[in-house]
Amino acid sequence: MKRIVASELSQHVGERVTMAGWLHNLRRMGRVNFLLLRDRTGLAQAVLGKEDLAPLEGLQMETVLELSGTVVEAPAAPLGLELHGVELKVLSPVADTLPFELNQPHLSASLPVFLDHATVGQRHPRQQATLRIAAGIAAGFRQALHAEGFTEIFTPKIVASATESGATVFKLDYFGQPAYLAQSPQFYKQIMVGVFEKVYEVGPVFRAEPHATTRHVNEYVSLDAEMGFIENHFTVMDCLTRVMRGILAYLAEHCVDELAMLEVELAQVGEAIPWIYFPDAQDLVYRREGIDARGEPDLAPEHERALGQWASEEFGSDFLFVTGYPMAKRPFYTHPNPTDPAYSNSFDLLFRGMELVTGGQRLHIYDDYCAAAEKAGLSLEPYQEYLECFKYGMPPHGGFAIGLERFVAQLLQAQNLRWATLFPRDLARLKP
Amino acid sequence: MKRIVASELSQHVGERVTMAGWLHNLRRMGRVNFLLLRDRTGLAQAVLGKEDLAPLEGLQMETVLELSGTVVEAPAAPLGLELHGVELKVLSPVADTLPFELNQPHLSASLPVFLDHATVGQRHPRQQATLRIAAGIAAGFRQALHAEGFTEIFTPKIVASATESGATVFKLDYFGQPAYLAQSPQFYKQIMVGVFEKVYEVGPVFRAEPHATTRHVNEYVSLDAEMGFIENHFTVMDCLTRVMRGILAYLAEHCVDELAMLEVELAQVGEAIPWIYFPDAQDLVYRREGIDARGEPDLAPEHERALGQWASEEFGSDFLFVTGYPMAKRPFYTHPNPTDPAYSNSFDLLFRGMELVTGGQRLHIYDDYCAAAEKAGLSLEPYQEYLECFKYGMPPHGGFAIGLERFVAQLLQAQNLRWATLFPRDLARLKP
Repeated sequence: MKRIVASELSQHVGERVTMAGWLHNLRRMGRVNFLLLRDRTGLAQAVLGKEDLAPLEGLQMETVLELSGTVVEAPAAPLGLELHGVELKVLSPVADTLPFELNQPHLSASLPVFLDHATVGQRHPRQQATLRIAAGIAAGFRQALHAEGFTEIFTPKIVASATESGATVFKLDYFGQPAYLAQSPQFYKQIMVGVFEKVYEVGPVFRAEPHATTRHVNEYVSLDAEMGFIENHFTVMDCLTRVMRGILAYLAEHCVDELAMLEVELAQVGEAIPWIYFPDAQDLVYRREGIDARGEPDLAPEHERALGQWASEEFGSDFLFVTGYPMAKRPFYTHPNPTDPAYSNSFDLLFRGMELVTGGQRLHIYDDYCAAAEKAGLSLEPYQEYLECFKYGMPPHGGFAIGLERFVAQLLQAQNLRWATLFPRDLARLKP
Repeated sequence: MKRIVASELSQHVGERVTMAGWLHNLRRMGRVNFLLLRDRTGLAQAVLGKEDLAPLEGLQMETVLELSGTVVEAPAAPLGLELHGVELKVLSPVADTLPFELNQPHLSASLPVFLDHATVGQRHPRQQATLRIAAGIAAGFRQALHAEGFTEIFTPKIVASATESGATVFKLDYFGQPAYLAQSPQFYKQIMVGVFEKVYEVGPVFRAEPHATTRHVNEYVSLDAEMGFIENHFTVMDCLTRVMRGILAYLAEHCVDELAMLEVELAQVGEAIPWIYFPDAQDLVYRREGIDARGEPDLAPEHERALGQWASEEFGSDFLFVTGYPMAKRPFYTHPNPTDPAYSNSFDLLFRGMELVTGGQRLHIYDDYCAAAEKAGLSLEPYQEYLECFKYGMPPHGGFAIGLERFVAQLLQAQNLRWATLFPRDLARLKP
């Protein structure tokens, strides 16, 4: 008999069906027992007599089962349905006790224990929902950019030169030559603006920064976009605003159950996302919080929190653009503000008071790269092959990058990014 | 004035419009001159008087321009339209001569010269079409799998243990520990069958094999899928058949112009793809071609060509499954054929006589992994964290992997895979 899944049960009331999945829970009541079967669409309840349980003797939760039974309405059961007259077959027995329970509403494991056993722990319904939301963000990102005429690209991850600085890249032996893992597809996506004008990539990036924080890991998924024929960074911010709206709309449509399970209130993007110029942001933090960081080249997390609070109170917005970060803190390919060249045509997008997206306008004239590199004391020698495209006609362009796992973590208000990362890589963890 | 692109010209006949793009060609006829502007949607022709060309003095092809003009019907022009009364503004001047011409129907550069300058060479309309077809295959793959209930996953590329064999992996320094680049998401996608039943990933894979052939590179994009609750590898082949059909339908719908430009005849997938059992395939090659490779553990490229020819003649099919490859040549996690255990529940999908997809059923019981590893003389010690999931209930499962660039190359009948790879990585090439 063809297998059906839990979400299809309601189409088969009164019929005999076959299901398959994992033994999620078993309430032994004696004469009548309630078995919960978990499949990719949810939970289904089966009612078994004492003697029906014989094949499960000595077996543990997560045993893989095939069940046949008749679908009967039962208001107290999940989905309001349950299986009666059940035949049960063990497909894959589980003899060992699980490292932690998967059938409680919340995982009881600590983060390190969870991560040690994440190959099993990710089966927990809340973790499933988390990972499905990540997949939904990626799908929403692609859908929004397709609608804007962007083309998907796949750029190499093994590179001959570090994009930004040599200190924070993983080094590799490439057939006897030194090579590196790409920190970002930055130069490649710029190059591809020369080909397709508007490009995006969803792929891994690698950062060898030896920090141990709750919001960094050393490998993550980056949602990258780059576009040509812009006026300045505000053109990019407009595009990002539409993309953010598209991602949230995608989640609202496709991840209803996941958002409900995790009690996530989806953020909203209004007509426009408010923005504030970097020096004004520092002034504001000083006035509101008394924290004087005026003249500092970057915002600290506490400044971002204060700004997020302000955006929420002042505009009812979960999002806030901070524009014009000082050139001193931005990479050398960043386009300066033509009217205030110590500042840049760049931005960060804060989401609920934390940096979620970084972007800006880039240099697009070869000679400007040479001048900027000289000023930064950088040699362009390792980048010649990449920079060639700027000799051959590049339009004004810019782009942005969203950290996927960070987006999920902030949406879910996870205490640690690692709860929103499939199999995190950090200073201490390279497995599983 | 808001910029329009070439594909929108026909909506603006008689109006004044602004366009922007690259100087693709300029035919200087004296009094009347024809300029071709290239943007992301195609070519548009503008007619300019001699004096209108002044801003282009000393500039080369690929100069980035903004043009304003009135849209006029002109049957001889591309799109049947051209711009008159043109004002021209240079956005990014090009002073250097291009390494090769981009405005001829075919690229004249040799492959090595092309690859040295691929950052510019990929702008050629044929290369653009090639890369758009690659993007279309990836999009079609995702769409087909979504329709089948698969969930997208993003697995780590830095791993503690090589999946299959230590000799062909890139080694990495991970904060002082040895680590490797993932050859495939194999174990991870299997683990994730325990979470979502059906999963897919589109991502880079890394192979340190030091070969120099026209059909291998050392980094490529792998379209990976894995599914649970299968009967055997035939369940996987059925799914792959639908996915192939879905990809080709996606291309037929979304890449019409690209396929026409490259004169690609799209392959067709009928009701089912024919299949042949490995030993029978060897017999057939012997009977048809007189090549006696019976008893050999694998098929050579000439065998695959002969089988492709046979499938074409016998079934009118571009595709052929070869099933049951000898266990000796398949990785240790492959599920043996229960009735003929020297052979495996695996398959290759040949496309026009060349291997395009590899797949099969995997072991799903922990003890079977232990036995298989012992038989293969392998230690499971480095894999313990991955294999834990098999102790905790894994359904019968299998999957497949499609090499994206190879698929494009075979569809286009490219002489070398590198023509279908954005920025290839091989023994000799790590740039751009």
